[in-house]
Amino acid sequence: MHFTPSNPEFADVVRASFATQGLMQLIGATLERVEPGEVDIALPYRDDLTQQHAFLHGAVTTAIADSAAGYAALSLMPAGSEVLSVEFKINLLRPAAGLRFVAQGRVIKPGKTITVSRADVFAYTDENPVHVATLLATMIVQKG
Amino acid sequence: MHFTPSNPEFADVVRASFATQGLMQLIGATLERVEPGEVDIALPYRDDLTQQHAFLHGAVTTAIADSAAGYAALSLMPAGSEVLSVEFKINLLRPAAGLRFVAQGRVIKPGKTITVSRADVFAYTDENPVHVATLLATMIVQKG
Amino acid sequence: MHFTPSNPEFADVVRASFATQGLMQLIGATLERVEPGEVDIALPYRDDLTQQHAFLHGAVTTAIADSAAGYAALSLMPAGSEVLSVEFKINLLRPAAGLRFVAQGRVIKPGKTITVSRADVFAYTDENPVHVATLLATMIVQKG
Amino acid sequence: MHFTPSNPEFADVVRASFATQGLMQLIGATLERVEPGEVDIALPYRDDLTQQHAFLHGAVTTAIADSAAGYAALSLMPAGSEVLSVEFKINLLRPAAGLRFVAQGRVIKPGKTITVSRADVFAYTDENPVHVATLLATMIVQKG
Repeated sequence: MHFTPSNPEFADVVRASFATQGLMQLIGATLERVEPGEVDIALPYRDDLTQQHAFLHGAVTTAIADSAAGYAALSLMPAGSEVLSVEFKINLLRPAAGLRFVAQGRVIKPGKTITVSRADVFAYTDENPVHVATLLATMIVQKG
Repeated sequence: MHFTPSNPEFADVVRASFATQGLMQLIGATLERVEPGEVDIALPYRDDLTQQHAFLHGAVTTAIADSAAGYAALSLMPAGSEVLSVEFKINLLRPAAGLRFVAQGRVIKPGKTITVSRADVFAYTDENPVHVATLLATMIVQKG
Repeated sequence: MHFTPSNPEFADVVRASFATQGLMQLIGATLERVEPGEVDIALPYRDDLTQQHAFLHGAVTTAIADSAAGYAALSLMPAGSEVLSVEFKINLLRPAAGLRFVAQGRVIKPGKTITVSRADVFAYTDENPVHVATLLATMIVQKG
Repeated sequence: MHFTPSNPEFADVVRASFATQGLMQLIGATLERVEPGEVDIALPYRDDLTQQHAFLHGAVTTAIADSAAGYAALSLMPAGSEVLSVEFKINLLRPAAGLRFVAQGRVIKPGKTITVSRADVFAYTDENPVHVATLLATMIVQKG
């Protein structure tokens, strides 16, 4: 789907908000792509982000998926908006084994109050992505 | 509800698994209570666990909620089992403002293959808990 | 939890809205209880409400659970409001075998825009309820 | 995605199971398309399938979405299998206004025990589909 952003500065807004998130810095996540309704977040593997089998912890997979879905929503909101996750559901499809992870956030349905978006997380060991999680989220706009 | 654990060593199993989770150590979470079908996880506030408004990041709230729900499920599983989150949904009810957070995981329906559990997260600034999130999860047993 | 309704006529509002739902009549569901933040919906078993094993169809279980959760939310909204389900998740815990089903809708967190509520569905063959489903929903107010 | 069915009779299995569902007959739903990992279910509008604004009731939208997701999963299962919904989440994106509705069920991740699938529901008044709901589901195989 193609969306037209209501704020031409949407990419700066997303980048500025992302930079203030302590957690994204703690885990080493970076913004890889910011387009209208589409935000990708990348994360290299690290030993301290694991669950008991040394795969990426489901909560870390969730963190980048939720953030990607939320920033995809924010990219379509008017200037001065902030975004909050009302709720989300995530299915962890496979063990998150890999050297690098990318969460692709995509808006499904933008709205004045509520935006619905999804995110899919892929694990990379070589060049072939493995689909490790899918998230479906409800986001709400906050006026600044 | 009262559940009878099938493994009398359930508390040791839960504590041993928790100790191997890099992420729980990274964020500073601790096991506060382990009973049959009931596990509480506590987390002190830290600046690097925040979202853009200095509240606890939704992904951190989710991390302790998912872990509490998963370990509540594991506490009822036979010896030699491990637990995986198939999926969960979380509603973030209020900004997670507080000095300390407790996720209360509770089994709703144990099963041979699938266990359904929930978790509620409370924020404490003084002695009065504030309900900040509720999670509903599907867990699956893994034979060791 | 105890809630104070903002509209003293809340029970009439819920009953009037329920009466206009073609689907609730089609399946034979009735409002059994309407209190502030709490609505119960009852449904007798019928052969044409089944899935392939002659248990109550998951979609029918869902229909009464979603309605109970939605009307629980509506019971706390100001006069002139209507309620819409933004989304919900349901776990079908056991086969819905029984002669009569009751969905208990309960508000978890009321709000000006968003209300989060849950519903639990119980099946009755004799006097002992069997917990067959649990639903967690996000409701939004619509101004009339 | 392209999937190879493990049972060459998959389409007959899906059609036979669908035919036994009292609820699908009650609401007038039909199987429109059965391919490996892909099942579409169609439903004409009817006055008795409505909520209070004469749109299709969310529970009916959910019924066809859940069935499409479940039968998409069943289409990839070995001979003799049956499918049960463990849980699902649905976002109701827009009022379900239309003369005809189609739920497109698609498998995201097949598995020996657990299959994850999604469904999208579209409303048709003329030839242009309107996306009214998206569902994400966890299905479990039952050996016959």
